[in-house]
Amino acid sequence: MPNTETSLNKVTPIPSADAAIETIVHFVETAHPVDLAAWIAELPYEQAKSEILTLDLQRRVRTFGYLPASFQAELVAWLSRGELAEIVTRMSADDRADLFKLLTPEQQQRLLRDLAREEREDIRRLSSYAEGTAGAIMTSDYATLSADMSTREAIGLLRREAPEKETIYRSYILDSERRLIGSIRLHELILAAPHTPVSEVMDPSPISATLDMKQEEVAQMIEHYDLLALPVIDEGGRLVGIITHDDAADVMQRETTEDFQRIATVSPFSENMREASVAVLYKKRIFWLSLLVIGNLFSGAGLAYFEETILTYVALVFFLPLLIDSSGNAGSQSATLMVRALATGDVTLKDWRNLILRELLIATALGLTMAVVVSPVGLLRGGSDIALVVGLTMIMVVIIGSLVGMSLPFLLSHFKFDPATASAPLVTTISDAVGVLIYFSIATAILIP
Amino acid sequence: MPNTETSLNKVTPIPSADAAIETIVHFVETAHPVDLAAWIAELPYEQAKSEILTLDLQRRVRTFGYLPASFQAELVAWLSRGELAEIVTRMSADDRADLFKLLTPEQQQRLLRDLAREEREDIRRLSSYAEGTAGAIMTSDYATLSADMSTREAIGLLRREAPEKETIYRSYILDSERRLIGSIRLHELILAAPHTPVSEVMDPSPISATLDMKQEEVAQMIEHYDLLALPVIDEGGRLVGIITHDDAADVMQRETTEDFQRIATVSPFSENMREASVAVLYKKRIFWLSLLVIGNLFSGAGLAYFEETILTYVALVFFLPLLIDSSGNAGSQSATLMVRALATGDVTLKDWRNLILRELLIATALGLTMAVVVSPVGLLRGGSDIALVVGLTMIMVVIIGSLVGMSLPFLLSHFKFDPATASAPLVTTISDAVGVLIYFSIATAILIP
Repeated sequence: MPNTETSLNKVTPIPSADAAIETIVHFVETAHPVDLAAWIAELPYEQAKSEILTLDLQRRVRTFGYLPASFQAELVAWLSRGELAEIVTRMSADDRADLFKLLTPEQQQRLLRDLAREEREDIRRLSSYAEGTAGAIMTSDYATLSADMSTREAIGLLRREAPEKETIYRSYILDSERRLIGSIRLHELILAAPHTPVSEVMDPSPISATLDMKQEEVAQMIEHYDLLALPVIDEGGRLVGIITHDDAADVMQRETTEDFQRIATVSPFSENMREASVAVLYKKRIFWLSLLVIGNLFSGAGLAYFEETILTYVALVFFLPLLIDSSGNAGSQSATLMVRALATGDVTLKDWRNLILRELLIATALGLTMAVVVSPVGLLRGGSDIALVVGLTMIMVVIIGSLVGMSLPFLLSHFKFDPATASAPLVTTISDAVGVLIYFSIATAILIP
Repeated sequence: MPNTETSLNKVTPIPSADAAIETIVHFVETAHPVDLAAWIAELPYEQAKSEILTLDLQRRVRTFGYLPASFQAELVAWLSRGELAEIVTRMSADDRADLFKLLTPEQQQRLLRDLAREEREDIRRLSSYAEGTAGAIMTSDYATLSADMSTREAIGLLRREAPEKETIYRSYILDSERRLIGSIRLHELILAAPHTPVSEVMDPSPISATLDMKQEEVAQMIEHYDLLALPVIDEGGRLVGIITHDDAADVMQRETTEDFQRIATVSPFSENMREASVAVLYKKRIFWLSLLVIGNLFSGAGLAYFEETILTYVALVFFLPLLIDSSGNAGSQSATLMVRALATGDVTLKDWRNLILRELLIATALGLTMAVVVSPVGLLRGGSDIALVVGLTMIMVVIIGSLVGMSLPFLLSHFKFDPATASAPLVTTISDAVGVLIYFSIATAILIP
């Protein structure tokens, strides 16, 4: 988080290796668990383990929870059974399930033996949902009430349960079958007269998600409705978990990073960019690069077809990079803007008709401007005929590039592909092939008698 | 929000124009204010006004608060002074200040006259901070306590104040000079024994931001520490406002959209993509498109310099789009990945040295693979000499494109520009010009005796 570095350092300076021991001790004692975890994650496992164990239990659990999941899994091998169980028991249910999924089968068995039955079942249940679904990011640390309690009883219950729950800002009201029938915020409970039944002050139709919904959908719901947490229900309407706003923010961030990878024609990967290996990055990049070669061979074939025109007017070649790049650039602009607008929901599929008309107008204006810019150069280098060919081509290729760039994300989305696959390089390659044909067709028509 | 459409519709179906009136009435009565506002924002102002006024006051205020600020400002002209004051008084302090900034001076004066003195001063203060700073997105709806209160007194105070505050999940403890000396969560107050002084249970060193911090920094802090709200202090350490997690999420979303615009070589704009005018989009796109023409003229000049080589070996031209596009594509991949990694903080400036070495390895592997893919085509179309030239060039241009793409975001960031300016089209244009020189230099060296 480079942009906050200065501010984070103001809050909790991270000591360099040669800093005085006191600085480190002070840091370990006072730093926010997020920063402490970031520091510990850079240490060798043995040293990381002893730093973790010097913390008091509450701080130890929070700091451990902020370590990267892969680092947690490695640390497991260094901790004794007792040390591990002590931490894992107190971790939030979703973090615990995430850690569990990364352990070896032997480590999983060993850990399950040391946990209480309730936690054992919870861990098995939470880690059983398919990756990418609401089920896989939900937690079971929520507080529940029944509708016939008084608000005073409800507050008493929350007071007893609070330390174990991830969030008691909102409690969920269940019927005898565990079906979700309402929700209430903590301050609404506090504000209500003490003997009011919960059923009278609760929200009787809370927004909820279902287990099989996609993570992005759920994250967007949370953002759309400004929720702190979203309850998740099963087919029977029974409450099975909640998804908290911070986990939703993480999902949104990952999804956006994936969109960036797609528009860069890089196959999506989840490794941190700083730590990804040469092999991983090679694999994620080579697929599209080689695929685009095929597209470019079309441009080459187009050029070969016009060999005679090229040999007669070699000056046409000088304008080739300019024309095909301008087409690709205009197309990249449209495609990238559309990919983002579709991702944020600013634009939906049904807007297609209106937008293509607008794009046509914009692209014509852009093409005309660019033609005016390059025609003098055409005149200078090749005479008035070449200037005419270059100017006309510029108008055409900018329009075609823009229309391809704008339409491709919609088409992909319509056929259930990720619109972000309409990357700048893909759009460039397509509009290049079309651009070459247009350029030399116009040139042949005008120049060759 | 296209991906949640189905789910949102499940929650609250938005009626089509010809739906039965009952459906509309039911929708207006039951929909979440967010969805209600989205529906109202599509109506003509007069009809929007009457829909707003049919709602009960609490729902009216919440729905109005979710309307786009520009729509709110237009609606102001349709509301009577009394209707307007009733809504504005109850809006959250930050939304109120945002609306105020969009009104005409006459409307501002008229509105201020109808508000209580306290609100008038609050509105003036909140709307006075520079756009883009923490001050401009903070709200004054926070709850404060003093350190020597008992927790029971504190809960009593919050109970009286809660309806007016945006969030009482966390309260801030101030000394007699309004300096921030601690913070406490509502459930910590509820859990503590009733006669404990607040000073004993509060967090004595809450994370805070300063008034002049950039909005992105503040939003990243909130995400980094999983906060619900971040207090903002002035130079004297006095609490002046809080920034809530949902406003921080909006800032992050806007910043990301700006990054998308930059990597598309579109000058940043804040209009919604569906509603932006032809003129706005033309203006935002033409600057970079024309600027890139200059870059492309270098490629053209390069080609002109090698006119003789081209005329002797016209087959070289057939591979020109392939080679310069591959270079540009590899460069776009690196640049876009780096821009995102710098924005999320996965990578920082000091990682430069390690990453350039890794990039060199990856690019060499990519270049070799691509050379193997295209050499047979070279052999087929131009013979073994051309195959050699094309293969060697491919290796070189993929390496150079990748290095340019990777370094440019770092360079820009180092010189305090936005790294996202290292867009795919910019990287493509630079690597094209270099690529042309390399291609024909290698060709001339190998082919021309």
